[in-house]
Amino acid sequence: MSLRKKLSPVRIKNNLFRKEIGSAPGTLTHIGEKKLDKVIIEIHDYDNDRLDIKKIESIADCKPYVHTPNPTWVQVKGLHDIEYLKELWEEFEFHPLIQEDILNTTQRPKIESYGEQIFMVLKMLYIEDGKLLLEQVSVVFTEKFIFSFQESERKIFLPIKERLAINNTRMRKSGPDYMAYALMDIIIDYYFGILEDINEEIEIIEDELWAGEDVNALSSIHKIRRQLIQFRKSIWPLRDSINSLIRDESSLVKDETKLFLRDVSDHTIQIVDSLDNNREMVSSLHDMHQTNISNKMNEVMKVLTIIATIFIPLTFIAGIYGMNFDYMPELGWHYSYPIAWGVMILVTIGMVLFFKRKNWM
Amino acid sequence: MSLRKKLSPVRIKNNLFRKEIGSAPGTLTHIGEKKLDKVIIEIHDYDNDRLDIKKIESIADCKPYVHTPNPTWVQVKGLHDIEYLKELWEEFEFHPLIQEDILNTTQRPKIESYGEQIFMVLKMLYIEDGKLLLEQVSVVFTEKFIFSFQESERKIFLPIKERLAINNTRMRKSGPDYMAYALMDIIIDYYFGILEDINEEIEIIEDELWAGEDVNALSSIHKIRRQLIQFRKSIWPLRDSINSLIRDESSLVKDETKLFLRDVSDHTIQIVDSLDNNREMVSSLHDMHQTNISNKMNEVMKVLTIIATIFIPLTFIAGIYGMNFDYMPELGWHYSYPIAWGVMILVTIGMVLFFKRKNWM
Amino acid sequence: MSLRKKLSPVRIKNNLFRKEIGSAPGTLTHIGEKKLDKVIIEIHDYDNDRLDIKKIESIADCKPYVHTPNPTWVQVKGLHDIEYLKELWEEFEFHPLIQEDILNTTQRPKIESYGEQIFMVLKMLYIEDGKLLLEQVSVVFTEKFIFSFQESERKIFLPIKERLAINNTRMRKSGPDYMAYALMDIIIDYYFGILEDINEEIEIIEDELWAGEDVNALSSIHKIRRQLIQFRKSIWPLRDSINSLIRDESSLVKDETKLFLRDVSDHTIQIVDSLDNNREMVSSLHDMHQTNISNKMNEVMKVLTIIATIFIPLTFIAGIYGMNFDYMPELGWHYSYPIAWGVMILVTIGMVLFFKRKNWM
Amino acid sequence: MSLRKKLSPVRIKNNLFRKEIGSAPGTLTHIGEKKLDKVIIEIHDYDNDRLDIKKIESIADCKPYVHTPNPTWVQVKGLHDIEYLKELWEEFEFHPLIQEDILNTTQRPKIESYGEQIFMVLKMLYIEDGKLLLEQVSVVFTEKFIFSFQESERKIFLPIKERLAINNTRMRKSGPDYMAYALMDIIIDYYFGILEDINEEIEIIEDELWAGEDVNALSSIHKIRRQLIQFRKSIWPLRDSINSLIRDESSLVKDETKLFLRDVSDHTIQIVDSLDNNREMVSSLHDMHQTNISNKMNEVMKVLTIIATIFIPLTFIAGIYGMNFDYMPELGWHYSYPIAWGVMILVTIGMVLFFKRKNWM
Amino acid sequence: MSLRKKLSPVRIKNNLFRKEIGSAPGTLTHIGEKKLDKVIIEIHDYDNDRLDIKKIESIADCKPYVHTPNPTWVQVKGLHDIEYLKELWEEFEFHPLIQEDILNTTQRPKIESYGEQIFMVLKMLYIEDGKLLLEQVSVVFTEKFIFSFQESERKIFLPIKERLAINNTRMRKSGPDYMAYALMDIIIDYYFGILEDINEEIEIIEDELWAGEDVNALSSIHKIRRQLIQFRKSIWPLRDSINSLIRDESSLVKDETKLFLRDVSDHTIQIVDSLDNNREMVSSLHDMHQTNISNKMNEVMKVLTIIATIFIPLTFIAGIYGMNFDYMPELGWHYSYPIAWGVMILVTIGMVLFFKRKNWM
Repeated sequence: MSLRKKLSPVRIKNNLFRKEIGSAPGTLTHIGEKKLDKVIIEIHDYDNDRLDIKKIESIADCKPYVHTPNPTWVQVKGLHDIEYLKELWEEFEFHPLIQEDILNTTQRPKIESYGEQIFMVLKMLYIEDGKLLLEQVSVVFTEKFIFSFQESERKIFLPIKERLAINNTRMRKSGPDYMAYALMDIIIDYYFGILEDINEEIEIIEDELWAGEDVNALSSIHKIRRQLIQFRKSIWPLRDSINSLIRDESSLVKDETKLFLRDVSDHTIQIVDSLDNNREMVSSLHDMHQTNISNKMNEVMKVLTIIATIFIPLTFIAGIYGMNFDYMPELGWHYSYPIAWGVMILVTIGMVLFFKRKNWM
Repeated sequence: MSLRKKLSPVRIKNNLFRKEIGSAPGTLTHIGEKKLDKVIIEIHDYDNDRLDIKKIESIADCKPYVHTPNPTWVQVKGLHDIEYLKELWEEFEFHPLIQEDILNTTQRPKIESYGEQIFMVLKMLYIEDGKLLLEQVSVVFTEKFIFSFQESERKIFLPIKERLAINNTRMRKSGPDYMAYALMDIIIDYYFGILEDINEEIEIIEDELWAGEDVNALSSIHKIRRQLIQFRKSIWPLRDSINSLIRDESSLVKDETKLFLRDVSDHTIQIVDSLDNNREMVSSLHDMHQTNISNKMNEVMKVLTIIATIFIPLTFIAGIYGMNFDYMPELGWHYSYPIAWGVMILVTIGMVLFFKRKNWM
Repeated sequence: MSLRKKLSPVRIKNNLFRKEIGSAPGTLTHIGEKKLDKVIIEIHDYDNDRLDIKKIESIADCKPYVHTPNPTWVQVKGLHDIEYLKELWEEFEFHPLIQEDILNTTQRPKIESYGEQIFMVLKMLYIEDGKLLLEQVSVVFTEKFIFSFQESERKIFLPIKERLAINNTRMRKSGPDYMAYALMDIIIDYYFGILEDINEEIEIIEDELWAGEDVNALSSIHKIRRQLIQFRKSIWPLRDSINSLIRDESSLVKDETKLFLRDVSDHTIQIVDSLDNNREMVSSLHDMHQTNISNKMNEVMKVLTIIATIFIPLTFIAGIYGMNFDYMPELGWHYSYPIAWGVMILVTIGMVLFFKRKNWM
Repeated sequence: MSLRKKLSPVRIKNNLFRKEIGSAPGTLTHIGEKKLDKVIIEIHDYDNDRLDIKKIESIADCKPYVHTPNPTWVQVKGLHDIEYLKELWEEFEFHPLIQEDILNTTQRPKIESYGEQIFMVLKMLYIEDGKLLLEQVSVVFTEKFIFSFQESERKIFLPIKERLAINNTRMRKSGPDYMAYALMDIIIDYYFGILEDINEEIEIIEDELWAGEDVNALSSIHKIRRQLIQFRKSIWPLRDSINSLIRDESSLVKDETKLFLRDVSDHTIQIVDSLDNNREMVSSLHDMHQTNISNKMNEVMKVLTIIATIFIPLTFIAGIYGMNFDYMPELGWHYSYPIAWGVMILVTIGMVLFFKRKNWM
Repeated sequence: MSLRKKLSPVRIKNNLFRKEIGSAPGTLTHIGEKKLDKVIIEIHDYDNDRLDIKKIESIADCKPYVHTPNPTWVQVKGLHDIEYLKELWEEFEFHPLIQEDILNTTQRPKIESYGEQIFMVLKMLYIEDGKLLLEQVSVVFTEKFIFSFQESERKIFLPIKERLAINNTRMRKSGPDYMAYALMDIIIDYYFGILEDINEEIEIIEDELWAGEDVNALSSIHKIRRQLIQFRKSIWPLRDSINSLIRDESSLVKDETKLFLRDVSDHTIQIVDSLDNNREMVSSLHDMHQTNISNKMNEVMKVLTIIATIFIPLTFIAGIYGMNFDYMPELGWHYSYPIAWGVMILVTIGMVLFFKRKNWM
């Protein structure tokens, strides 16, 4: 009961898990933790020769950049000011379900086509204090512009910005579909880092188990299992989504870009495979740990058994001659005492030989 | 034997599980618990401008509302008065198999097309006294009307009624197919709540296991496993059903609505994924619990072994000099007693060092 | 070795498992237990207005009923008189492989199309003395007649006969395809009863485990596992078979009947799902049982450890002053005895506190 | 290390597992154990009216029989004389890959079409000294002839020869495709025998476990698992192969024969199902065995605990009054001894009641 | 903590696992260990009559061989000198993604078509010091030439070179597609060797477990599991890749070669099957090991229990008559001592009989 008390912060977070039951689809409610107070919007308007970067304040400032034939990347950080976001979305005619899904940060990753718009939900992963955390990144792109939405101010896309700053690159020459690929690619690149961390933790546990220092192995194993489950949840649905994007017939994604998407698809499969292998490894480690415990118990039991089975009979012999009967002939014999010692030594030697034969010593 | 006695209420319920063997298909028998005495029928006749809500008594009162071109939602509560329901169904030409399935509350969830009519069986879940209970909700819709059937008076669809009360919404503008979507959506919304409760219980067990207070962990784990199995049974078959509805070529489900159905399909997949992840988590918790028990046993054994292996040899030494032999030279020596103490202390130190090296202390 | 002896009856049964190696396909050998001495044939010739039921003796008597345009159901009980059956089959031109499969009662359930004839193998299940037994029921139907074959005289199809006795029902109006559906449906109806029994047994084990009275849990769990495996074997292959019958293009199965077959297909899926869920439940129960055993062992060990670790040191102290050294100053002191008691009580209190802190008491 | 020594014969056998790395495809190397010194060839040239059987010496003798329009079955035993076989194969234009695969007895079973020729690899199973052994049987057939190759002189196809000796049978009337079916069918017939043996072994283990005589259960279980794995490996790939043969469009396999192949396909599925069920059974038996061991340990521990916890405190009491303090008032009292006995009996009764309540006695 | 220190070399290796996050696709970074300092290039220009082998220094030397109509195999060893390799790739117009993937040695195996070029990533496996190591081999081929890239100087393809040296072979007559097949085939041939080694290790563990010498079984089992996981990762993705190559419609792979590819595909399936079987075997071995440990513990416990339960009561009896009460009538009786012995012997016989009945002795 008192435990329930302690857990309350967790449960408050849980209450954010879903919107009110039965609300209409398209009802805009932000579901998730509030990570940023104000919405920050940054516009990247580019073609092969030119790159304009601007932080904007009002939605109106946004329009002249976006409604041009050259590609524009609008980066939006913070999902709390729904009114403000709604104005933006209405301006660029986002489908109501897209709007709802951007705000619901408990979505599973997916890629969906809404005719003129393609909508992607991705999960940015990072490890903080040994916990696997995630931030939802949504991307909407059409033939002319691309919007990215993220919950916090984390500089996830910094490398993209650096590459965008260089003239005459494929990124500058290509349209929003390539930019969408680039955003997806970078997030999956981060996954490899997480995977590496998990691999390393598994190796540490393995080394600890070899070394016999496995006091914390159990909790470490459980923690990694939990991380693997969460990780898998974030990447597994992407496999099919990316493939359906590759097979997509619309002109929104160019054939050139599809080759690159195939590459991303390959990476997701590689990560999913590694996760599955890791799961198997962890399961094998758990078996090993369990057997280690049994082995240790066996050793403890052996020591107890050896000591007890040697000394209990000896103590019995000593006890016999500690009895106070008046008529015990042995008591008066002269060599009784050394004979008693002799018997006890013989018993001990017999026991030791028995244990040696049993391979317990 | 006496156990069988105690279980009888359960078995009585079990007897409701199926109708008489070999009865003709379309034989109308109510299979399930009786949750409501009288059948309650409420009609919602609506278009964009108008909403008529009426509780009706006789089937005849029903007809003028339903046989109009604008959509009508007939909400039926209680499945016991078969004669009464039969009259209703005959009036609106329900297929015999639909009639049979509405009454059989042990159906698995499904969506089936009977030409002009689409028939859905859904499972409303709720947790009462820590038990996962379910109520069957059936929906039949055509191009002009939609019927919903439920077992009890639970106000499952209250939020729908509230939304229906508002003019000019998508719900008021759309037909029975959208209403069918809305009913399905709300039931799946409830699932997220149940999922949250289960997640919370898993977290509590996890915390208890970390804290070592796992006296009830075993039964909690088994209870959650049972809930997960039942839950999965209620949602798993929906995945394919919804997808086949989306791919359906008939004009009964409009393309607009299909986008929303895709959203529902997404939610079901998300829930199934979460259930699978939970199952894995619970399995990991069980492993952890099992290992915990082994660890505790190990600790108990270590204490026993340490105490016993230290004191049993000492007691033996004391026993030796408790013997009453007449000729035991040591007994008469002046320093025998302190020497005996010395030996015993040395043995003890040796044992302690041995245990330290073994990492048992 | 002596065990092999005891098992001989089982092995004799096993020898019935297959016909002679390498015999030609279509070689007619009855494989299975002999359950009935004489072949019993009953003819049901019916249309909407008329129903003739007749037990026949010679094959010749059979012909006038079967070779009419209205549907005829020929019910054959007993598979031993191969000569007699062969005459029957030749008359109605059964394919050699059908003939062979009817006699081989170890067949897995299946539905196969041989052009003009559709052949179904079904498994009738019943529980006797806690054992799951099965009887093979084969059905062959064409556009004009339907034959059912069963091993024993069990009145499996009694409810069908009762329904057939009523005029103007769907059964009387429809052809052999509907009758085939009805036969299949009734057998699957029996499955629900078996499922119920198994569910009940699982609940009893569950209650016993909760109550701690799990002496027989292990064997009950194994028995149920065995039943689930056998049950699954009898129903699993039907899933695909029924679906391929539904998708069948031939005119042998009418569209109307296909709707009913879809219902049967639904039932089989429901049963398979339940079996899988039961399997998972049983597996969870086994885990629970295993953990229960470990817990009990833990408790036993704790009692041993507490008693032993408290009294072994005390006995040692008592042993010290039971030594017979001539020079033991404490022996002569006046308050030695009460002091010794004091020390022993302090040691006991210390131990108890230690155990309390460890939560062992 | 010394173990490796002991295992050397096994490893020598293993070296036969594959040909030299990087040798050209079609390089003819016999891979497997040498089971027969000389190649034995027997020719069966038959049509409906005539059957010529002849053991031949030189390849040239072979030609007049095979190059006739009526079907010829050439049975080849022994795979060691590669030169000799090569001559044969060249004569009848076997594809190089077929030649290679016939010689490699580690092939998995498969059916492959090489245009005019269909090539089948099958595994003949038999149990010798409790070990599951296999012999590879390869079959090549065209429209006019069929070759079978086997490693040893085992009379696998004796029943075929007996049937072939009878005039006017389907076998004599049909072509090589039917003969191919017959060969495959007989090998799968043998599988049922093996399956029966395994079933019987499982039943014996089950009975032993029930009877508590499970000393060898562990090794028996492991042995059966190994057999099931090997068995599955020999039959599993056949499923798809046979089905692709049934769907084959070429005229090599006649429609009539395909009906019979469907029957074989059915048998393979039935065997695979049984193997899977057996695997589950064995797994359940292992669980049972494991729990049995825990139960036994529990019982051992209970006896120890009961004896130890009763007598250790009593021994302590006796120890107290074995002390030699000069001033112990109880020692002088007249009724001390009977009182001491009284206390000890009370302690014993208390303990026994405690154990009774715990259900340990 | 100190463990992390020790692991640092591993982690440095891990850092090679991926390139910088967010770098553009096609950015050329070598990912993997540096195994060779200088890039070594060897050209094999051949047709049926002629074979020119030449080690070249500058890229320019390469061109006259490759840009001829007859097939040329360019073998490249060492992946570190990116500038040098880039020059080569630019000359022969490799797709940027191919270039990137050749350098990234953490790729999963795959076969991809880039229009005119087909790109294959393969994993060469070898066991060194009991560890399963891998080297990535990439192959690019067009209609006219084939390039192979490997990390080290290992003479993997020596057998190919030997076969290539022979005139008039299929290899000399065929084009780069056949050479690609040959390279793939040889790598998979090596897999059989690894498989054999793993099989052998499994057999050794099995023998050790039978012999009861299972001290290292646990670590061996874990090691093999790890190897199986890694092995599977290297071969599993090839299955689909090869099949898609076989189904490929382009003219790059000739129909003749496809027959051989089918053979390779067969081998990969065979290996994957064997790996799965091995995994099951290892799992069964682990179960066996676990049960072995329990059995041993049982035996240890039995010895302890037998000794302790026999001698503890005896010691108690001896303790009774070691008490120093003044009034203990038995002490003065003449036959007390032999009677005490008698009682003790009777108790012992009783205990032994009890243990015999329990089958513990």
